[in-house]
Amino acid sequence: MKLEMICTGEEVLAGQIVDTNAAWVADTLMDHGIEMQQRMTVGDRLEDLIQAFQQRSQHADIILVNGGIGPTSDDMSSLAMAMAIGEPQVENKEWRQRLTQWFAKNQRPMPVNNLKQAMLPESAIMVDNPVGTACGFRVKLNRAWLFFTPGVPFELKRMVTDQFIPFIKNEFDLDKPVKVTKLLTIGGGESFLAEKLQDIHLPEGIELGYRSSMPYIEIKIFARGEKAIAHLDSVAAEINICLADLIVAKNQLSLAAELHQLLLDSGKTLAIAESCTGGMLSSQLVDFAGSSRYLVHSIVSYSNAAKVNLLGVDESIIDIHGAVSIETVEQMAEGARAVLDSDYALATSGIAGPDGGTDEKPVGTVAIALACREQIFSQILQLPARSRGLVRSLTCAVALDMLRRKLNKTAVLVNYPSYKKGN
Amino acid sequence: MKLEMICTGEEVLAGQIVDTNAAWVADTLMDHGIEMQQRMTVGDRLEDLIQAFQQRSQHADIILVNGGIGPTSDDMSSLAMAMAIGEPQVENKEWRQRLTQWFAKNQRPMPVNNLKQAMLPESAIMVDNPVGTACGFRVKLNRAWLFFTPGVPFELKRMVTDQFIPFIKNEFDLDKPVKVTKLLTIGGGESFLAEKLQDIHLPEGIELGYRSSMPYIEIKIFARGEKAIAHLDSVAAEINICLADLIVAKNQLSLAAELHQLLLDSGKTLAIAESCTGGMLSSQLVDFAGSSRYLVHSIVSYSNAAKVNLLGVDESIIDIHGAVSIETVEQMAEGARAVLDSDYALATSGIAGPDGGTDEKPVGTVAIALACREQIFSQILQLPARSRGLVRSLTCAVALDMLRRKLNKTAVLVNYPSYKKGN
Repeated sequence: MKLEMICTGEEVLAGQIVDTNAAWVADTLMDHGIEMQQRMTVGDRLEDLIQAFQQRSQHADIILVNGGIGPTSDDMSSLAMAMAIGEPQVENKEWRQRLTQWFAKNQRPMPVNNLKQAMLPESAIMVDNPVGTACGFRVKLNRAWLFFTPGVPFELKRMVTDQFIPFIKNEFDLDKPVKVTKLLTIGGGESFLAEKLQDIHLPEGIELGYRSSMPYIEIKIFARGEKAIAHLDSVAAEINICLADLIVAKNQLSLAAELHQLLLDSGKTLAIAESCTGGMLSSQLVDFAGSSRYLVHSIVSYSNAAKVNLLGVDESIIDIHGAVSIETVEQMAEGARAVLDSDYALATSGIAGPDGGTDEKPVGTVAIALACREQIFSQILQLPARSRGLVRSLTCAVALDMLRRKLNKTAVLVNYPSYKKGN
Repeated sequence: MKLEMICTGEEVLAGQIVDTNAAWVADTLMDHGIEMQQRMTVGDRLEDLIQAFQQRSQHADIILVNGGIGPTSDDMSSLAMAMAIGEPQVENKEWRQRLTQWFAKNQRPMPVNNLKQAMLPESAIMVDNPVGTACGFRVKLNRAWLFFTPGVPFELKRMVTDQFIPFIKNEFDLDKPVKVTKLLTIGGGESFLAEKLQDIHLPEGIELGYRSSMPYIEIKIFARGEKAIAHLDSVAAEINICLADLIVAKNQLSLAAELHQLLLDSGKTLAIAESCTGGMLSSQLVDFAGSSRYLVHSIVSYSNAAKVNLLGVDESIIDIHGAVSIETVEQMAEGARAVLDSDYALATSGIAGPDGGTDEKPVGTVAIALACREQIFSQILQLPARSRGLVRSLTCAVALDMLRRKLNKTAVLVNYPSYKKGN
């Protein structure tokens, strides 16, 4: 079964919106073991759409078409499809009635434009859209079923989940189960990881993939078929041993998600003091509902005055050692922890650039500390300094990782090959 | 000149990453008046790549290929291209030397895998990549030049800016000047904006485009040709009058960028107290080098204890009015301002969801205050609550906008059609 996707709309093509629909569809299908083979993005030009439908329908068995079934003049997926088949558009009575009811229910007059949404290619089979005015439909051309879906994300998601996936599972023989395990790593480049893992034996049906999405490189272990799936855990375990300290989460989207769960489970509380990360660290945790259960406060002590007045850092320590130093960051962490007597506190201070670096402490130099009730851990690292945003996001990752290791009762300070130890 | 893009990589196709590279390329080219006609995304299957190169090169004049020139086994753009032409891959001596030097400089042994990056199709012309190990190249097939670029975003951006755009400008006759003015808006939907602007007369050669990128909708005024460019400023001024309070920045990427500059110019200082935004507000400002000149501190007072102890909020005020109230957020702002006696302080408190809403204060209810030395401004809004992230990012936008208006000496509190006034 060869599955493709055609995304329509000038705004997608022209980069005015990032195509999150396509990413969501591919990812969701993958979870059902259905692989997307190819994707095409076409603007709002009738002849380009017709050409795309005619050409791709010769190669694919099923094509998910997204967008272009709205009420405005640049919505022309239905017209293009009818022309690609060489048949007229006809009004779908059922959908016309639904439109009338929809606008009546919402106490709004129906704009004439919307009537267009009931016009489908003659041979099309209507696909219900219970949450919007755009009518879905499917139609056969050459070897392919073309399945037309709305561009509005929540309408699309509903239609894919409720109708598209059941349809292809029924239409094609998709009984080979698949399972994916995802490992998030930090601190090693893609080629470093690939070389480390090159001698791992992969049983038939198991594939490794890498995906770089700073601050992470994700390793995806993809198993197809019962036999391969039975080996998935042991392959993951082998990779885990091989990469030791670099794997920071399994089947999680981020380190923050992993730490969020660990903190909830632990019942411990956390305070944060941020200099170079400037709120990014706390924001990553606050992104999860329930973070109020452990995060008591975070102080962005961006000025030295804030470090001294809010965190109780000794002014002479900053004078002698500098704001980016083990000494300062340890006092920041201890001060932050003491404010509301939390179990833990993380502190960051660094030179995020692009200015402010010196020979001794170049851009990318960051100091990070984790204060616990009876102990403090700290380190200075020299991070890749390609951009201010990268330095800040890597700093967050290492800070989160230190607390993750602490909660997991493993060594808090480890070697990350890509991050040199600073001084 | 017909321009297309081919994006490669299982991770792009499989939705593991949203294809921001493609969006960036299209948007950047558009700024130079170069329109993308079509885009195709192909996985890491050799035969699919070969087919895509062979087929698209019959339709396009230039094809930007992104990704698949890294060191790992799933990087096979060069091999596929060589096979599509029917020629061998040969080692590019210059690039091999560059690789050797690159690893020597970074004091790391070169993994054998990386040597692969110097293997180009025989007829390829090397394209320099000064910031990475992936060698760019271009090669001709059928009517098209295929231009191969790295998947790593900052390497791609450098190559497109420094080499791809000059190459196509030189190769094709693209001498009609273009100029774009971008207006960032908040608080009104795309159809609201379009309706408001429908009666504006657009001189020949000027087009309007909309791009939704929450929390903003960007209005792009695109002028092609000298005559149209001469009208650009007056069209922008007309739009500005028409949309009054909704335009928050001109030719800036974000409200934070606009406010950063205004704060630098004003010489004033700022403190922040964040509850629901949880560090996001300060992080947006810290993202700019030089923010230390005005941002004295930010306190993420996520717990009520932090609001009371760090910001001096009256506990009874929280008890009586709730954490999300005008009374509490005003005390947060005043408290934050007082800590280090800054000129201004912003404070946010809201129900970001998905839980925690009540009938009286549903999810999306946020209170925002701006404390100045002699005055305080505050409002409660009912924001669209589609996601926790959206509520938080809209809250940041309104907070930044309040201070922006203050610094611009215009009314601090205005009506945003999409954000209802709360109570």
